[in-house]
Amino acid sequence: MIRHKRLADVARLAGVHASTVSRVLNPGTRAMIRPAVAARVLEAAAQVGYRPHALAASLRTQRSSTVGVLIPDLTNPLFAAIVRGIEDALGAAGYTAVLGNSDNEPARARTLLQRMRERRVDGLILATAHREDALIAECRADEIPLVLVNRTVDDRATSAVVVDDAAGIRLAVEHLVGLGHRAIAHLAGPQDLSTGRLRQRSFARAMVAAGLRVDPRLVLVCRSMTEAEGRRQFAQLLARGAKFTAVLAGNDLIAMGCYDELAARGLACPNAVSIVGYNDLRFVDRMAPPLTTVRIPQYDMGAEAARLLLARMLDPHAPVRTITLAPELVVRGSTAPIRRQTAADRRREARDRRQRAADRRG
Amino acid sequence: MIRHKRLADVARLAGVHASTVSRVLNPGTRAMIRPAVAARVLEAAAQVGYRPHALAASLRTQRSSTVGVLIPDLTNPLFAAIVRGIEDALGAAGYTAVLGNSDNEPARARTLLQRMRERRVDGLILATAHREDALIAECRADEIPLVLVNRTVDDRATSAVVVDDAAGIRLAVEHLVGLGHRAIAHLAGPQDLSTGRLRQRSFARAMVAAGLRVDPRLVLVCRSMTEAEGRRQFAQLLARGAKFTAVLAGNDLIAMGCYDELAARGLACPNAVSIVGYNDLRFVDRMAPPLTTVRIPQYDMGAEAARLLLARMLDPHAPVRTITLAPELVVRGSTAPIRRQTAADRRREARDRRQRAADRRG
Repeated sequence: MIRHKRLADVARLAGVHASTVSRVLNPGTRAMIRPAVAARVLEAAAQVGYRPHALAASLRTQRSSTVGVLIPDLTNPLFAAIVRGIEDALGAAGYTAVLGNSDNEPARARTLLQRMRERRVDGLILATAHREDALIAECRADEIPLVLVNRTVDDRATSAVVVDDAAGIRLAVEHLVGLGHRAIAHLAGPQDLSTGRLRQRSFARAMVAAGLRVDPRLVLVCRSMTEAEGRRQFAQLLARGAKFTAVLAGNDLIAMGCYDELAARGLACPNAVSIVGYNDLRFVDRMAPPLTTVRIPQYDMGAEAARLLLARMLDPHAPVRTITLAPELVVRGSTAPIRRQTAADRRREARDRRQRAADRRG
Repeated sequence: MIRHKRLADVARLAGVHASTVSRVLNPGTRAMIRPAVAARVLEAAAQVGYRPHALAASLRTQRSSTVGVLIPDLTNPLFAAIVRGIEDALGAAGYTAVLGNSDNEPARARTLLQRMRERRVDGLILATAHREDALIAECRADEIPLVLVNRTVDDRATSAVVVDDAAGIRLAVEHLVGLGHRAIAHLAGPQDLSTGRLRQRSFARAMVAAGLRVDPRLVLVCRSMTEAEGRRQFAQLLARGAKFTAVLAGNDLIAMGCYDELAARGLACPNAVSIVGYNDLRFVDRMAPPLTTVRIPQYDMGAEAARLLLARMLDPHAPVRTITLAPELVVRGSTAPIRRQTAADRRREARDRRQRAADRRG
């Protein structure tokens, strides 16, 4: 069995009062004790193997030193990187995260959130926000410190760390326009997510700003930000028969779905069409071809969200704040200058197709 | 402020004794109460918005219902998938995970582990084991329930969920031998990790079983399982000048390092050399070329480890158990039949090289 060394043992060995030991072992009050005495206490604590009972301490202080973090799915590299940022920033302040994967299912999110609150988490970070989100309204009513990350809510009444998606989309559109593309399609994310909605609106604005018009036949909305749904909508887009030379995908996974549908038809970008993603997930630089995409500071978003939450926990009545981080465009092999499909291009594509088929047989 | 509804309020509303409410709200004792009464209590609790105070409950029961999970790095997709499996299995049993990223630094692992134990986690799952691991020996001495995942320790005195790496490596070697390869190199993982060590020994055995000899010049040990180190060791391998036609990498990241060094030299697999990875990380099927690799059941390893730990927490004196999961080979584009480098091959490579250079300029 684990033996629980008592505070009194440490006090006896260090030759101080138990309350002094308590103050030294609590980082928040350690400065009250002279350094030489504090050092003696810490040494005595180490010697007898005393571990402060964090649970008991948290009941005394009414704090658990844990933060609930709700994300859609940890196996999406975007959220793994955000969570890593959250964990590092929380850890530096002596807090730990309790994680939950909602799979974008509201009922599951509700259950996870309830469980976190039963554990008396000191605050919440949500990467699962919908633009109108009853769960978030409930948290706000209970005044639990709360920060959103990546996605936010329409009323902006909750602190959040987000990316300047308008700027990101503008960079992507300007890149495509600079390559000569005029007929640009957009496979948008779900419109009940701030990211899906803002990117679509920003696409329309950036097109107009570039002196182009948005062809409604070239804008499709994905029901989820997944490879499968991206592929399905890209097939829909092709079926509509309206000409386009480039696609701006709502995120990298949707862009991968476009790759898949192109491959199934024996085509590839950027020959058949230029494709731009969003997020710059780990390994998209290794895809065939490497994906041109908008890089967002995934790790930093998580770390900023954690720091914003820690500040709110110290001062729950601080004004609501939205921190917006800048994205950058990363140009790789999935975009190329426009050119009319010439006979030479078609011959080249046929050759590539044969080569790939031969590679597969090999 | 959050108002804390009292147990007594629920008891009054449901018309039962407070101890009955307590039993109903504790999943472990709910079965003691008649279903109709339990339903009435739950309804009353929902009506007054009562939330059981998990912290207080955990002090009473001496359990925190949390499990510490220590991994090297969440942004490595292998560990994200393992953690997702752990979270799902723990969640189903009413437990939550507290996560820590060690970055393979023993001092950091020690700090994280100490913090977890101060929080009185009920058990630990470690994906950070070294073959001889002082931290694990300490945990064992304290008799805290403990399960290792993916990596294990030499003395096998701790329960673990691992992959049958001997079988995985045999599949990979047999695949390469079947394609005609004889001079097969191995870029092994660090030898102080069970995975690195076992895969290297299994490589030697599989070669002998195939009637081939292991050329010591063709076996190099990476200091870490990373792209950068894989690239460095692959360059070393080339510098040695010994002929080889295939490389078995210690894991997928090391294989990606080989891709990088080949690309820097204007070469590519499988033309220049066949390459096999290990793990089947998310998106390696989208690389150029798609990676032939050994798929391990990442999510299931995590879920199994969580279930094994939960069982140990119920019965701490259960015998130590190692659960071994079967891998499978996934053949993709990075491996091909051996052939002598002919003039035609060399011409084709030169053409590919020019094409890639042109693509980059475009």
